[in-house]
Amino acid sequence: MITMKKLINDPAHVVSEALLGMAEAHPELRVDQHNKIIYRVSAPVRGKVGVVSGGGSGHEPLHGGFVGVGMLDAACAGEVFTSPVPDQVLRATRAVDAGSGVLHIVKNYPGDVMSFEMAAELAAESGVEVTSVVVDDDVAVRERPHTVGRRGVGLTVLVEKIAGAAAERGRGLTEVTDVARRVNAGGRSMGVALTSGTVPAVGRPTFELPETDMEVGIGIHGEPGRERLPLAPASRVAEYLIDPILADLDFTGGDGVIAFVNGLGGTPLIELYLMYHEVARVLQRAGVRIARSLVGSYITSLEMAGCSVTLLRTDDDLLRLWDAPVRTPALRWGL
Amino acid sequence: MITMKKLINDPAHVVSEALLGMAEAHPELRVDQHNKIIYRVSAPVRGKVGVVSGGGSGHEPLHGGFVGVGMLDAACAGEVFTSPVPDQVLRATRAVDAGSGVLHIVKNYPGDVMSFEMAAELAAESGVEVTSVVVDDDVAVRERPHTVGRRGVGLTVLVEKIAGAAAERGRGLTEVTDVARRVNAGGRSMGVALTSGTVPAVGRPTFELPETDMEVGIGIHGEPGRERLPLAPASRVAEYLIDPILADLDFTGGDGVIAFVNGLGGTPLIELYLMYHEVARVLQRAGVRIARSLVGSYITSLEMAGCSVTLLRTDDDLLRLWDAPVRTPALRWGL
Repeated sequence: MITMKKLINDPAHVVSEALLGMAEAHPELRVDQHNKIIYRVSAPVRGKVGVVSGGGSGHEPLHGGFVGVGMLDAACAGEVFTSPVPDQVLRATRAVDAGSGVLHIVKNYPGDVMSFEMAAELAAESGVEVTSVVVDDDVAVRERPHTVGRRGVGLTVLVEKIAGAAAERGRGLTEVTDVARRVNAGGRSMGVALTSGTVPAVGRPTFELPETDMEVGIGIHGEPGRERLPLAPASRVAEYLIDPILADLDFTGGDGVIAFVNGLGGTPLIELYLMYHEVARVLQRAGVRIARSLVGSYITSLEMAGCSVTLLRTDDDLLRLWDAPVRTPALRWGL
Repeated sequence: MITMKKLINDPAHVVSEALLGMAEAHPELRVDQHNKIIYRVSAPVRGKVGVVSGGGSGHEPLHGGFVGVGMLDAACAGEVFTSPVPDQVLRATRAVDAGSGVLHIVKNYPGDVMSFEMAAELAAESGVEVTSVVVDDDVAVRERPHTVGRRGVGLTVLVEKIAGAAAERGRGLTEVTDVARRVNAGGRSMGVALTSGTVPAVGRPTFELPETDMEVGIGIHGEPGRERLPLAPASRVAEYLIDPILADLDFTGGDGVIAFVNGLGGTPLIELYLMYHEVARVLQRAGVRIARSLVGSYITSLEMAGCSVTLLRTDDDLLRLWDAPVRTPALRWGL
């Protein structure tokens, strides 16, 4: 019996059934249903560095929706909010290696980091050269002893796009890895939740949020934020999100930023565009020039209402790679 | 003070502020902020039939997100769930006419139909040839005396894509209009809501839906459906939506269908792909062949949770037009 307001069958089979739908809707991809891996159908691509990512499900279109020309060669899907296992990652890594090596793009969560590390070691033993970039862009997390560092959130989309473009252009493993590291070093994010999502297998919201409150600094699995505040106008929310980002890294000067306003799953596009306007206003006031933008729901947290803002410092090279053609289910231009 | 779980400022300014964001995020469009019209920057395009649509806001990305090469020349935005006024439509019609005439694509709601009719008459008086196609694909509405016919819902996206492609290829006004009519004649839709959206200026949900129920046959403004039923597995929901569609029109044979699973604003992509799998299963059982598919949130109802299914009978010509290049904020391929 369904007791959640979700379009699902058995809560235990949400991920595998959604993957069936992905495969049927996108014949240009190859889905290994048993191992929950989505491949670019042309992988391994001769002469190209392989790019692999993955993580818990529930963040769609990340990562599977970013598999295709100019972005990922493979994405490993864990259960909802659950890391993929090392064997999945190893299998994907071997499958996309064309002899030029493979880059792992990993969001900074202990389970993800461990699975990708183990897979990288095993792949190396079988002769596949693997490098790894751990994305940790969430400024909401204040470093403390015993924490495992910042979480990987919205910037992951930009790392996958830009590193994917570098690989597509035929750059070598060292260069592709360097590009991914530069993106991670120059990008910061923060998010806000208005409501909590519900993990299907749990059946109740991850956290309780009163009708009058929002959680500023939310994680994409509903991890607690920096503070719980009363609902505020979008203009104030934009400041709550951008001020800590600008306090953390200088985004003025240079070739401007890529500004990414991301919906967390339950927030409609009309609100995201309204938020983008507020973000643009705050950035203009702060002397930050927007070079490119992206508005939409690209890294979500089930049906959570809310959004995140990501800024990335760019340069000529990063902008060219951002503008380069991409053809995936969720991101597509220039082809 | 904000009392809704929305990323907005003053509820009265949601549409105009979202349009500011649209303009800033999409320099490839021209937004007439005062008249709330989004234009393709190259309009009027010499030798091309102009294609204009519009309607109440709250359904984003429809219609403004479909302005661009291969789709609409202009979209007129009303306030949330409120028809645009005749003057807006007239202005847009004149602006995109390059002497080859203009097609109006109108969803079948009395206010929309009236505004577009008045604008068409006034445009004709000033020498612009205008034709009109009223989209009425929602099988949830059972015809009764005194009703104004079926509502226009998901099929509108397909009419805009396919008629837009016909215009882009240089077909004349009569042919472009004919293509739009064929799409409307061969397409049917039905939707289901799990939750209600909230109109910002109203401040409370449009309808009440108990935690255990769903509304089958919902309209995109929260109009009542065919029946209120207990929540059911996605496999059953797919049958609830498709059975009335198949009972209304024969979709077997021919060149197959375009199957479109659409999110209503608050439902995440993972559920839409899961639903797509169920839709594909039901169609296979019914002997309906899927030629193309589209999965995502393209015509929404604010943050309503739920989805709609649209089927369109195709032929060689319609499939070629569907596959033709399109470059808009929300739909983009082949360019």
